[in-house]
Amino acid sequence: MNKVRLGLIGVGTVGRGVFDVLNRNREEICRRTGYEIVVSAATARDLKKARGFLGPTIKLHEDPLDVVRDENVDIVIELVGGVTTARSVIEASIALAKPVVTANKALIAEHGNELFALAKISGSIVAFEAAVAGGIPIIKSLREGLTANRIQSVAGILNGTTNFILSEMRARGLSFQDALSDAQRLGYAESDPTFDIEGIDAGQKLAIIAALSFGIPIQAERVYCEGITQLTEGDIRAAEDFGYRVKLLAITKRRANGFEMRVHPTLVPHDCVIASVDGAMNAVLVRGDAVGETLYYGAGAGAEPTASAVIADLVDVIRLQGVAACAQVPYFAFQTDRLSDVPILDMGEVECSCYLRVRVRDESGVLANIAGILAEQGVSIEVMRQRESNGSHAGVDIVIFTHKTNERSINHALKKIDALDSVVEKPVRLRIETF
Amino acid sequence: MNKVRLGLIGVGTVGRGVFDVLNRNREEICRRTGYEIVVSAATARDLKKARGFLGPTIKLHEDPLDVVRDENVDIVIELVGGVTTARSVIEASIALAKPVVTANKALIAEHGNELFALAKISGSIVAFEAAVAGGIPIIKSLREGLTANRIQSVAGILNGTTNFILSEMRARGLSFQDALSDAQRLGYAESDPTFDIEGIDAGQKLAIIAALSFGIPIQAERVYCEGITQLTEGDIRAAEDFGYRVKLLAITKRRANGFEMRVHPTLVPHDCVIASVDGAMNAVLVRGDAVGETLYYGAGAGAEPTASAVIADLVDVIRLQGVAACAQVPYFAFQTDRLSDVPILDMGEVECSCYLRVRVRDESGVLANIAGILAEQGVSIEVMRQRESNGSHAGVDIVIFTHKTNERSINHALKKIDALDSVVEKPVRLRIETF
Repeated sequence: MNKVRLGLIGVGTVGRGVFDVLNRNREEICRRTGYEIVVSAATARDLKKARGFLGPTIKLHEDPLDVVRDENVDIVIELVGGVTTARSVIEASIALAKPVVTANKALIAEHGNELFALAKISGSIVAFEAAVAGGIPIIKSLREGLTANRIQSVAGILNGTTNFILSEMRARGLSFQDALSDAQRLGYAESDPTFDIEGIDAGQKLAIIAALSFGIPIQAERVYCEGITQLTEGDIRAAEDFGYRVKLLAITKRRANGFEMRVHPTLVPHDCVIASVDGAMNAVLVRGDAVGETLYYGAGAGAEPTASAVIADLVDVIRLQGVAACAQVPYFAFQTDRLSDVPILDMGEVECSCYLRVRVRDESGVLANIAGILAEQGVSIEVMRQRESNGSHAGVDIVIFTHKTNERSINHALKKIDALDSVVEKPVRLRIETF
Repeated sequence: MNKVRLGLIGVGTVGRGVFDVLNRNREEICRRTGYEIVVSAATARDLKKARGFLGPTIKLHEDPLDVVRDENVDIVIELVGGVTTARSVIEASIALAKPVVTANKALIAEHGNELFALAKISGSIVAFEAAVAGGIPIIKSLREGLTANRIQSVAGILNGTTNFILSEMRARGLSFQDALSDAQRLGYAESDPTFDIEGIDAGQKLAIIAALSFGIPIQAERVYCEGITQLTEGDIRAAEDFGYRVKLLAITKRRANGFEMRVHPTLVPHDCVIASVDGAMNAVLVRGDAVGETLYYGAGAGAEPTASAVIADLVDVIRLQGVAACAQVPYFAFQTDRLSDVPILDMGEVECSCYLRVRVRDESGVLANIAGILAEQGVSIEVMRQRESNGSHAGVDIVIFTHKTNERSINHALKKIDALDSVVEKPVRLRIETF
């Protein structure tokens, strides 16, 4: 029996998941691969705890780099948080031409371009399926399953925490704050939830997806990120009344003059498949010119779903060890010398239909004023309706659905509307996507 | 520039789709693969028509086997219907060690076991992503994306024709016959629709999926197939009233003593993702022990979605040409010497919750009689409710939802219920799956 020896760097939630699944499914994975896979060395922040979990036979190192250097380690599994240690682990693996599997999206989003370039030179492999959408094999589907296609757009629910919060707000009529507290209590959100609720986590994943979809460098710093902290249950209800659900979507699109990359709360028609993705689940909707719409759904986080992706990578790596680089799937799904330098578009260039809600004093002429401002900016109105006030606040709400409009125009219009005397609150704008 | 030369066998809908997509996306596919891909030879039933479509430069052969033998053909693309010609094409490709890509599910379902064994000996490759669920990369996801998992079950909407008919019946209150006529008029159903509406097409795809999920031989003849021809709009509406949608699901499950393989109309909770799959789309729900539930959604048929899968296979084949067999993904996702001989269970062994509808004369005691028969067979009732008659028929409907029950017990009970004097029509039984 052929044997593969792993070096496990990080024995936290995901590290334990990987260890557990490898043990539980040892026989099934061996039937698939023809290999016995064992963890031969490891490191963790708390070595004593790790020893208790991993048992007595695995060699423990204090220094993560010693795991990489361990001659009984064939493949490195990098599962630590943050980018500093993780980066040096991956660089060391590449330098020793040891394949490395990582679940670290922040690292790939920030340093993927350099790491992949280094790996290509050394003939090493850096695998990162687990970095995006947890257990969903979306990296494989994009890089290998859809190679016939000119990808047109990808829209994903890439953050389970915010999807859970939005599902709770809708289903139970909770405020953002109450839904967040629930998510924290249930372990879906961290005590400092900024990274999730501001859309940064989804943005990092989106940057990776865009790179693989279009063959462009990873450009996480160019993603427009707008979180869900300003969303009210009233807007979610209003959207619902018009046949929409609100999802935090990470969207990238091919346009004639560049690519869009943006994360923001988005109204989607309630009967499209992605609208039915509830709770902490993830989903990625990919549109290719040949295949049309495809969607990939599953758990985007958690110990074992993430372990599923890590081990799938591991099996690929085992299979491809020693195979010529040209027989391997290129990092960006495109040949490295054929990457595109088509630019990422500024948010001002983006075009969307919009939902607007403007709270006004119930006076004559206010509707005409708002309609006039929109017309002046070339924003065309599909529906404009006054919503009943619930009595708990001053004024009435005017809800407007616009046709597709340039972001810059709508921003100008909103500024002017906000300045109207009869407008009593900052107007709300949510973008709409139909698939 | 490296060049790959294809032999295209079949220039029908899918063949044209492949040719069109290869031409349109020549540049994008070349950026991905580093290869220029050209069709150098072809054959078709109508060579004159094929000449008109393919242009003057492609060598046309009358005999499909001459395409395979053509020394300017590196890879064979088999896209003819039926199994006779297709089989000899694939056998000839294998004999010459030329990789072959096929979209022919009937061929793989019926002869896959032998063909894969032959291919393994000759070192050829037979790729068949397009044989199941059209453009959805489900073969790749099962064989490569979920290798960490012990797969527990797969449930798929694998036939677009029947899903279109069911969607129309629900949305527009049509009868089966009227929805079928619509599907035929719109080109979603063939003039002889038997293969689709009786569940045979879905059954063949299911047999392939089960083999890859569990590492068992393909056993299409062991799939239980029940089509949608007996479904009434009334049952669809009743299911709806209880919170379910009716889908033709192809289901395979791991059980302690064997595997289930069955295709039948199925009630699924209206708020689960697969319930929202409408029209001619396909979806496959895979449950693995590590990843949990994942779902794959997309177009299951049509020229370009199928071409998308054919070309994805082609790119894989190009990449892996000349690579050792051990570095390739095994046909059944499991090593060929590690296939399992765990049996397929008889339908009598299957366990499901059921929806029953019994039309009875409105007499006292009939409910008690039915309840008594079910109790006698150990069938436990969750809900039993009399439905209002719509006045257009004699009698009233009793709708029953059972708890999970062995198929054999419910069959016995239904026979006895049917024999009751007060029962005026053959009772309806639909199975329920919750995910």
